[in-house]
Amino acid sequence: MKGYIHVYTGNGKGKTTAALGLAIRAVGAGKKVFFAQFVKGKSYSEIETVQKYIPEITMKQYGLGCFIVNKPTEKDIAAAREGLAEVATILASGKYDTVVLDEACIAVYYRLFTVEELIEAIKSKKEPTEVIITGRYAHKKLIDIADLVTEMKEVKHYYALGVEARKGIEY
Amino acid sequence: MKGYIHVYTGNGKGKTTAALGLAIRAVGAGKKVFFAQFVKGKSYSEIETVQKYIPEITMKQYGLGCFIVNKPTEKDIAAAREGLAEVATILASGKYDTVVLDEACIAVYYRLFTVEELIEAIKSKKEPTEVIITGRYAHKKLIDIADLVTEMKEVKHYYALGVEARKGIEY
Repeated sequence: MKGYIHVYTGNGKGKTTAALGLAIRAVGAGKKVFFAQFVKGKSYSEIETVQKYIPEITMKQYGLGCFIVNKPTEKDIAAAREGLAEVATILASGKYDTVVLDEACIAVYYRLFTVEELIEAIKSKKEPTEVIITGRYAHKKLIDIADLVTEMKEVKHYYALGVEARKGIEY
Repeated sequence: MKGYIHVYTGNGKGKTTAALGLAIRAVGAGKKVFFAQFVKGKSYSEIETVQKYIPEITMKQYGLGCFIVNKPTEKDIAAAREGLAEVATILASGKYDTVVLDEACIAVYYRLFTVEELIEAIKSKKEPTEVIITGRYAHKKLIDIADLVTEMKEVKHYYALGVEARKGIEY
């Protein structure tokens, strides 16, 4: 049996939440999930729910983010690289049925690690681990090796109306 | 304060899971969620997780579905309409901070209820309820009244490789 590689990318809302929903569905089917979050700039409410209620999901954050204004520092790069190494070990171990690399596409985009390093980590997975990768700007090489790719396309967004990110909705 | 109306549509994987992820995030921020599932043909694993672990999410199914082969029966129509009426009451009550109408776009597409009836239900909501609607083929009128619309676009899907829907991943 083979596990598949999913990529959720694009500029629309719904990428991290789709990965979260997949994690919840996997748990309902008796699976164990490792949910790695790269370059997340804020404390996300989903962590509260997962840590409070769902022992089958292990969630871990590797470094802060939000590099739109500030460039990644040495510390950011180190945190992301350490995270990728840890996730690679987890993928190879087969201890988790589903492994999420949330915002790994962004980590590649900001050159915290290379797409080749990301692909090497994914390819080290023990079958049948299912791998979910999210984030804008998915690299072509990642799309090439993925089995499923959804582009979350922004058709309309309330940010255009001046609505700011809200706790419990965006984070 | 105002709650917003989200629509997650398109032919790609990630619509229901995005709504689920939003529900998990909302709970982490102390919110209460009502998650209505229309025309779901199978028993979905996420129901197990939610019912087992997360008391802040009330999940309810209104009728089976999968009308690709068989046309909706009177019973299917009655279940969906009853569901919409119940959800309208819930929306108007303001008892839930976030209300999901999963696959409501499909219910409209198969004429279980009209887009006008769906919009009327949504518009009856007590502020600041956040409303999430999912499903392929979102009607233009629904997109017009929505504040946020993401199209989940299928770029690549393993169904094309002959992979069948798997428990814990697709349902």
